Amino acid sequence: MTPTQIAHDVIRGNRRALARAITLIESGREDHREQATQLIEALPKDREALRIGLSGTPGVGKSTFIEAFGLMLTRQDLRVAVLAVDPSSSRSGGSILGDKTRMEQLSRDPNAFIRPSPSQTHLGGVARRTREVVQLCEAAGFDVVLIETVGVGQSEVMVAEMSDIFALLMAPAGGDELQGVKRGIMEIADLILVNKADGDLKAAATRTCADYTGALRLLRKRPQDPQDFPKAMLVSALHDHGLADVWHQMKSLAKWRKDNGHWTSRRAQQATHWFDEEVRQGVLSHLTSHGGTRDLMDQLRTDVGQGKISASAAATKVLKTL
Amino acid sequence: MTPTQIAHDVIRGNRRALARAITLIESGREDHREQATQLIEALPKDREALRIGLSGTPGVGKSTFIEAFGLMLTRQDLRVAVLAVDPSSSRSGGSILGDKTRMEQLSRDPNAFIRPSPSQTHLGGVARRTREVVQLCEAAGFDVVLIETVGVGQSEVMVAEMSDIFALLMAPAGGDELQGVKRGIMEIADLILVNKADGDLKAAATRTCADYTGALRLLRKRPQDPQDFPKAMLVSALHDHGLADVWHQMKSLAKWRKDNGHWTSRRAQQATHWFDEEVRQGVLSHLTSHGGTRDLMDQLRTDVGQGKISASAAATKVLKTL
Repeated sequence: MTPTQIAHDVIRGNRRALARAITLIESGREDHREQATQLIEALPKDREALRIGLSGTPGVGKSTFIEAFGLMLTRQDLRVAVLAVDPSSSRSGGSILGDKTRMEQLSRDPNAFIRPSPSQTHLGGVARRTREVVQLCEAAGFDVVLIETVGVGQSEVMVAEMSDIFALLMAPAGGDELQGVKRGIMEIADLILVNKADGDLKAAATRTCADYTGALRLLRKRPQDPQDFPKAMLVSALHDHGLADVWHQMKSLAKWRKDNGHWTSRRAQQATHWFDEEVRQGVLSHLTSHGGTRDLMDQLRTDVGQGKISASAAATKVLKTL
Repeated sequence: MTPTQIAHDVIRGNRRALARAITLIESGREDHREQATQLIEALPKDREALRIGLSGTPGVGKSTFIEAFGLMLTRQDLRVAVLAVDPSSSRSGGSILGDKTRMEQLSRDPNAFIRPSPSQTHLGGVARRTREVVQLCEAAGFDVVLIETVGVGQSEVMVAEMSDIFALLMAPAGGDELQGVKRGIMEIADLILVNKADGDLKAAATRTCADYTGALRLLRKRPQDPQDFPKAMLVSALHDHGLADVWHQMKSLAKWRKDNGHWTSRRAQQATHWFDEEVRQGVLSHLTSHGGTRDLMDQLRTDVGQGKISASAAATKVLKTL
């Protein structure tokens, strides 16, 4: 099948074609990469899902949240795709627990599609592939694409770069711990969801939510923020509390951004960002796979490894050949 | 002063020269970058510190640990440098709390040197500068260089790529939460230090430490691991418990790796890795700052932003000009 034919079947909602297309996109082979680019180009640009980025450290209840939130959406006849960006998959091939076992009910739902993180040699590769899979899911007619990531680092920034709305899932905490949240991460969040607002932790969760509300007020407003955003909210994924309100807030935020021109401009900025990333990555693989530069690179790699020359000085030599 | 003169003063242990050299390394100006490269080249290669990477999520007690651990080392007449790699600094210019206020006693210790994370436009830049500052600190005669980072993401992998030993500081947790630790992060850790083994949390910490010990046993052994490594240990940074043992374990691990050839080969691999990073970064800035390609890049950026062409297809066009 040609990339165009696969694209056609993906658009018709064929699941097997979607899986096949994703495999093509995640492949490391150069001819597959070419076909994947053709496939992406053949997708219609007029189908848009709401892209929701979701992050939270291990133990915060991310899987429980996604399962409950996803099932709420599919009950409303919305089609939901869940993708993961796992910074550790570059080494180990994924987290200890598989993604499907984490979300048992959702994974059996015909309106849901769950895909674990691609295994790539570096986080940039994981993010790039995921971004293309987001586009595939939109073309396949999904209404919501949830992109999940872990941690407090670069993977969050990357996921925010491919999301319309970015939500941070947090656990209830003492006042001291609040100070540990990095401002950079607070600044990319549209919603801070304080989970586990149930049982013994309810009081702590309420306090934590109030603390975040206060902290968010200290941040400078961004142009893409309507009144009252970013905001902190209480949820209990376990007891299905607050999820409908979260969805309501997300929809009204998306609507406000569309009405005020931020939606389109943000998607444009994001596309440009990924273009830069593609170029950066492509140039390196070019340098390491073609003729004269490859030999120079190999020689310099050895020299750098033996401490004969510093990484910077060696890189300068390569760059002079351009 | 020429870069060689600054290097000379750094080697003599002049603090002002060290600060000056770091400023030069962290500068974004192209002529400064050239001088920085010369400075790095002028450093002696025969001075080695023990490079310790340390990571842990916010609230785990990282600052308390570094303060207590650092003071223990300076009391043994060891000279300690503490550097930070903060993935959020690329957006906000650093964490909410300054680094020095976090480690009050250590920052006043004449045998210690504390440097906050450089502010760069992206994490790669932060990591690159930090790596060069590590080399500076070695040349300046520090015995231990502690490189601190936050989170469970890419910044940890980067810090591990510039460390001889990588330690992960963890909080006591329930059994459920343990499953959330990503295997990729477990795999780069030489030591998992379960902090807060004091007061009410002591029992939970002991259990958590046993759980990690069990989990570490499930991982495949790496060639650079002696018997009993990687290992989980209990510490209380607050009460100064277990820190001497941590230092003892780190020293014996370093000795084993030196005796068995892993120390040198790992440093060589790391240098090669950073060379690749330097080249990748350098090529992109070349493409965006020179003649014909810049115009093509600008045009394609616009097209990508307007959705006329996909990021991949546009990147392919740029790469064809090489």
